[in-house]
Amino acid sequence: MPQILGLTRLVRGPAPVPSDLEALRAQIDRLDHELLDLIEQRLNACIAIAGLKANDTSGTLRFRPRRETEVIGRLIDRAEHASSALVTHVWRELMGHCLQAQARTDLVLCASRSPHTLKERVRERLGRAAHAQWVATPEEALDLARRREVVAAIEYSPLTPWWTALRHSNLAAFDLIREESGRLLAIIVGRVGPDDVAEGPSLRVLTEGELEIRRARGETVEPIAASGELRLCLTSQGEANR
Amino acid sequence: MPQILGLTRLVRGPAPVPSDLEALRAQIDRLDHELLDLIEQRLNACIAIAGLKANDTSGTLRFRPRRETEVIGRLIDRAEHASSALVTHVWRELMGHCLQAQARTDLVLCASRSPHTLKERVRERLGRAAHAQWVATPEEALDLARRREVVAAIEYSPLTPWWTALRHSNLAAFDLIREESGRLLAIIVGRVGPDDVAEGPSLRVLTEGELEIRRARGETVEPIAASGELRLCLTSQGEANR
Repeated sequence: MPQILGLTRLVRGPAPVPSDLEALRAQIDRLDHELLDLIEQRLNACIAIAGLKANDTSGTLRFRPRRETEVIGRLIDRAEHASSALVTHVWRELMGHCLQAQARTDLVLCASRSPHTLKERVRERLGRAAHAQWVATPEEALDLARRREVVAAIEYSPLTPWWTALRHSNLAAFDLIREESGRLLAIIVGRVGPDDVAEGPSLRVLTEGELEIRRARGETVEPIAASGELRLCLTSQGEANR
Repeated sequence: MPQILGLTRLVRGPAPVPSDLEALRAQIDRLDHELLDLIEQRLNACIAIAGLKANDTSGTLRFRPRRETEVIGRLIDRAEHASSALVTHVWRELMGHCLQAQARTDLVLCASRSPHTLKERVRERLGRAAHAQWVATPEEALDLARRREVVAAIEYSPLTPWWTALRHSNLAAFDLIREESGRLLAIIVGRVGPDDVAEGPSLRVLTEGELEIRRARGETVEPIAASGELRLCLTSQGEANR
């Protein structure tokens, strides 16, 4: 229905800005009502998507991190006045609630060194809608992420190679949380499909041999931790973490 | 222009929900574009308000905590599908950015006991748009709040009666942050006018004598801390903190 949307915009825009305080406040109130109407339509569309996927047996989460990041990127490109921070903050919250309307998706957090920073950064990434739960060990977090509608943010430590469990599992490390210094703080894992891993360098668990083969092919592969013959590697984007 | 808005809604609503995945995703994309357009119109209206107030000499902040809380309350009442959490999360972020578009307003934080909880709770209340800065003492926080476009969240402690400085000052304690147990964690202060203090019990610094006079009038006044002859009191809503 692009014509209809065109008409809508033609009728509404180009937004004459009133010149007195009362009129401006009234305009803001009207804009807020329209915003709420659109948000409720968006919620309904997300619930309809959940209905279509009710018989989906792929075993992946309703959460689509890559699509979320792409949507936000396109909106940032489209914005004329709104900052990228505004678009990011508002849509992360909105999409977090739309996800919960599709399927309750909990957040499982595991950190001993910087729990507060981890929680703050995960909330920035995923919004505040999800119920958050702390667990004591990476194994508990991985177990919940395997079995439930759960996204797990697990602190990375060179001393605790919990990440070896990502090899040959239905879990993907689909996002990284870094400190301002760039140091890796945590890895976000969940049952997301290969298409849903966010763009940018992704994490992969490779054997020493696989690492060499990829390098010989000219791929950028940077090992950041080792455990036995396994290496946790940052690789250029795209494929599943298997 | 209510007729025009009515027409807009008539043309758009009642939101036929498509029945296949591609169409639903396309509908969500269109809704996101419309949301962004409305948000940019809201930003422009807020910038126009700032222009009207450019010569304002009241010495109060552009931040209007009471109006924000009232707007959110009305939207929650109006919502049919959106939860109160969704409305609160989205509009706190949106209004935080609209405030920055009117006048850069920084956040000053002061806490020694629970700095992470304080920051998290203040962000929930004010969104993530404001630049946040930590200071070491309540006196520094109060000084910045007196002189700059600043909102200060200062940890409350029965042992540090910094709140006596609120008596006979241009600062109001306009919001409280409590722990889940109900214990007072911090007080938010700033140069907000008497009309801008949020609803609900407010904080006031009274002498022992003033406290007795209010009680004799039948007001609900609960002293929660004492320093010399001054009492920090929770009182029923409405007036300025003087």
